[in-house]
Amino acid sequence: MAGISLSRARTIIRKALEAGKEAGMAPLSVVVLDEGGHVQAFERQDGASPGRFEIAFGKAYGAVMLGMPGSAQMARAESQAYFIAAANGAFGGKLIPVPGGVLVKDAKGRTLGAVGVTGDSSDNDAAAAKAGIEAVGLTAVI
Amino acid sequence: MAGISLSRARTIIRKALEAGKEAGMAPLSVVVLDEGGHVQAFERQDGASPGRFEIAFGKAYGAVMLGMPGSAQMARAESQAYFIAAANGAFGGKLIPVPGGVLVKDAKGRTLGAVGVTGDSSDNDAAAAKAGIEAVGLTAVI
Amino acid sequence: MAGISLSRARTIIRKALEAGKEAGMAPLSVVVLDEGGHVQAFERQDGASPGRFEIAFGKAYGAVMLGMPGSAQMARAESQAYFIAAANGAFGGKLIPVPGGVLVKDAKGRTLGAVGVTGDSSDNDAAAAKAGIEAVGLTAVI
Amino acid sequence: MAGISLSRARTIIRKALEAGKEAGMAPLSVVVLDEGGHVQAFERQDGASPGRFEIAFGKAYGAVMLGMPGSAQMARAESQAYFIAAANGAFGGKLIPVPGGVLVKDAKGRTLGAVGVTGDSSDNDAAAAKAGIEAVGLTAVI
Repeated sequence: MAGISLSRARTIIRKALEAGKEAGMAPLSVVVLDEGGHVQAFERQDGASPGRFEIAFGKAYGAVMLGMPGSAQMARAESQAYFIAAANGAFGGKLIPVPGGVLVKDAKGRTLGAVGVTGDSSDNDAAAAKAGIEAVGLTAVI
Repeated sequence: MAGISLSRARTIIRKALEAGKEAGMAPLSVVVLDEGGHVQAFERQDGASPGRFEIAFGKAYGAVMLGMPGSAQMARAESQAYFIAAANGAFGGKLIPVPGGVLVKDAKGRTLGAVGVTGDSSDNDAAAAKAGIEAVGLTAVI
Repeated sequence: MAGISLSRARTIIRKALEAGKEAGMAPLSVVVLDEGGHVQAFERQDGASPGRFEIAFGKAYGAVMLGMPGSAQMARAESQAYFIAAANGAFGGKLIPVPGGVLVKDAKGRTLGAVGVTGDSSDNDAAAAKAGIEAVGLTAVI
Repeated sequence: MAGISLSRARTIIRKALEAGKEAGMAPLSVVVLDEGGHVQAFERQDGASPGRFEIAFGKAYGAVMLGMPGSAQMARAESQAYFIAAANGAFGGKLIPVPGGVLVKDAKGRTLGAVGVTGDSSDNDAAAAKAGIEAVGLTAVI
């Protein structure tokens, strides 16, 4: 599995959290998943609500499983709510179809996994994820 | 149970994948279910996202279980979203009510199973399924 | 994702089915999963019972998720039944902890996925999986 | 909620992973939960199988929810399997009742959360968790 090494995952998380702090965001939680949708690393900042793992995970999980970042899932949910509702059923209710679920690609365009961020507005969450991903030289598809 | 023989299922899948390639579609995933809604055969093309089995299965499963192809399920979801949501609850969240879930019938009009395709637009998915089904001399109800 | 290409997955399935036929086994069903536990390809031979996808999948899925082939899962279930029961709960009831769930490794020892076979005795199922895996030059951990 | 700060959780994870490496253990995965059983931080070492989050989480979750570390849960499972099976049903199948789920207490004996480790033998997993917890001056109940 190519995936995202633990060392890189740590850097992605730290840089995403730093980006959030610098921009004055609320406490963030950040998960890194491999290309099979399995958890590689996660951190929840002090002050975040207890359920943030599930939200961060759901954003990133849907991105991996459907091959669609959160923004694209949200657009589909806006235009065809029953499709996203049904997809969520097919994946055991795990999807969170809003921005903040960001695909991670390498220079050849291969998907290595996804990053999920939650805690501030969805768009800010996605921006923090992007900052983390780009800090390790990978491409973020938000 | 008449069903769809493995030999025919293989041909349906190959022809659906070929039809997708010829039409320049994104990588497709194709499932063939028997008339009880159980998996006979499945293939996911290289480059498709990892969750495509669940989507393909859900399209075909709803077609068999409700006796309605994806287009009819989508029409019902548009006009009466709570019915499709409730049906999905009754079937354990497995339905994906959009085109690409195609019923397979024989010359006498008996349902032999269904084909589910996912990967490109829903209408293209359905067209690929139809191409596969017709390649073995059966009738596609899209 | 390194995984197992669809071309290789097809060969694994065909060769496993052939091995079963040559040995006089009952109709087999064979699934190939990628290294994230997601379905790449599946075939169920004519005459097999309808629930064979779920059994084949469960054998291969547990092998990938736990990094343990079916024989090792069975040994653990024999010595510590509540552990395997609990692990099954943690993975949504999907595990089938008996032989026939076979890890697929490359020459460097990396796990590329797993093959699950069901239909005959568990040991025969595992032998058929092994035959399929070795036919594409990969290593089977049964 | 006192919990375990993210800073401390990071140190616990790093020290548990270091302890495993020094003792020649297989790649480990380590989760830190707060006193409500919610995820604070998690890391999976490169080379671990993909399902390790679920196992690590289940070990720590049972410890928090039942107020019993993994060793005590295992003893109960050995003497009264149906109790642990029933408890697992009550907690949605999330418990993994073996060593490696370790309670974290402060100097006054208050439970702050739990650490779950998986990847090597259950006893080694517990030893690694203990090393991590003690590295931040807290008490491990294994």
